[in-house]
Amino acid sequence: LKTDGFLIDLDGVLYVGNRPVGGALDAIGWLIESGRPFRCLSNTTRKCRKTIAGQLSAMGFPIPEEYIFTPPRAAVAYMKAAGKTRFQLLATGDVDRDFVGAGTMNPPQADFVIVGDAGDALTYDSLNAAFRHLMDGAALIALERDRYWMAHDGLSLSAGPFVAALEYATGQQAIVVGKPSKSFFALALADMGLRPDQVAMIGDDIVTDIAGAQAAGMRGILVRTGKFREESLAGSGVKPDGIIDSFSRIREITGA
Amino acid sequence: LKTDGFLIDLDGVLYVGNRPVGGALDAIGWLIESGRPFRCLSNTTRKCRKTIAGQLSAMGFPIPEEYIFTPPRAAVAYMKAAGKTRFQLLATGDVDRDFVGAGTMNPPQADFVIVGDAGDALTYDSLNAAFRHLMDGAALIALERDRYWMAHDGLSLSAGPFVAALEYATGQQAIVVGKPSKSFFALALADMGLRPDQVAMIGDDIVTDIAGAQAAGMRGILVRTGKFREESLAGSGVKPDGIIDSFSRIREITGA
Repeated sequence: LKTDGFLIDLDGVLYVGNRPVGGALDAIGWLIESGRPFRCLSNTTRKCRKTIAGQLSAMGFPIPEEYIFTPPRAAVAYMKAAGKTRFQLLATGDVDRDFVGAGTMNPPQADFVIVGDAGDALTYDSLNAAFRHLMDGAALIALERDRYWMAHDGLSLSAGPFVAALEYATGQQAIVVGKPSKSFFALALADMGLRPDQVAMIGDDIVTDIAGAQAAGMRGILVRTGKFREESLAGSGVKPDGIIDSFSRIREITGA
Repeated sequence: LKTDGFLIDLDGVLYVGNRPVGGALDAIGWLIESGRPFRCLSNTTRKCRKTIAGQLSAMGFPIPEEYIFTPPRAAVAYMKAAGKTRFQLLATGDVDRDFVGAGTMNPPQADFVIVGDAGDALTYDSLNAAFRHLMDGAALIALERDRYWMAHDGLSLSAGPFVAALEYATGQQAIVVGKPSKSFFALALADMGLRPDQVAMIGDDIVTDIAGAQAAGMRGILVRTGKFREESLAGSGVKPDGIIDSFSRIREITGA
């Protein structure tokens, strides 16, 4: 089967920590030189696209900002399609920069409450304001709904628990716009002008990357780097279309 | 059927806002003079028992502090029975005073995380600390798990959403010690030395008061004050053992 294009997860696939995965720089170079289309698809919600592109560049990856798809981009597309753009954003870091020009941020009346990794932006008052918007008719958008992540000082709450809190309080179900949402994959596919059956998703998360890609009609290729664990693969019930030791082996699955 | 003793909800039954329900002062006076045992059973977690007794006294109710049962008392009993007393408390107001002498509050290693109405005590860091204790083996105690309450400036998140957040993050199920927990009713029954079948619970909440009391083997008497609404009664599927216009009609159900 020929693969025309790729969707590539970032953390754990191209790099771990702040270091490129061995051979990943060459593999990205080869993709670019051979003219094969690709986009990067990450669920990170703590950094804006520009910051991510800068960090990739510092590691040696020449990946333009426009190639990077993170959940804020999906949220902006969702609001645009809905024709409503007043939103309250609960998120940390500089991710708010991905929402500049997308509508009215933190208005008195909101159409959407958007929850990402909130960190210190999370206070009783900010969560209560979100709750009140939801009770007044706003819809709840979750950039992702992970349970926790490993911060430098230990396990730390991710966006999921706060999404769950607002769902419990309001009886409303969140719209998840990050992976494994089909519309998020579709955004990146449309940007490449490719159909799902022409594309393989490369990731280290068996659920959001592999099962998610397969449910969206793509192939899912698992890498044995990042958060990959044999046990999670065995226990997942998911069968990847391919497994490679690392992103450096990308040529093997092009069918070229 | 003769009723030997009473469990009485506070807010909405004896008072609404800061004003006694019409006839409630006389009705409590009659209970006391006639020597009928009673205890007050409330799910409030924002005030300690001493503060509640003081507010009752200011309204004219001569109810001693020891007659007041709130979820902290149930939590303390739960920890004592478990033989472990190191706890992190996430709560607001002066409710921490009900935990004085109950064990070690906010230790480096906790056996329990106890969540009440957290209000301003709720920060990302305090919730994250709770999360880490739970991941290190602490058990989660919910003083109650209401969704929200009506504060002076509008609907506001109660303990439930934060309990739900911690459950989502950890995969752990909270132990709810407030109404309608059977062990909470049992604490107050034991304090009166009465069996469930000798006692009626008087409340305005069809679920936590009436269905809760019935599940614990008591009679449940609904009052048409406080949060009582005909629709919630009709839609509840719960059949109270009696309905009275207000607490002032308490004599009618004593069987005396």
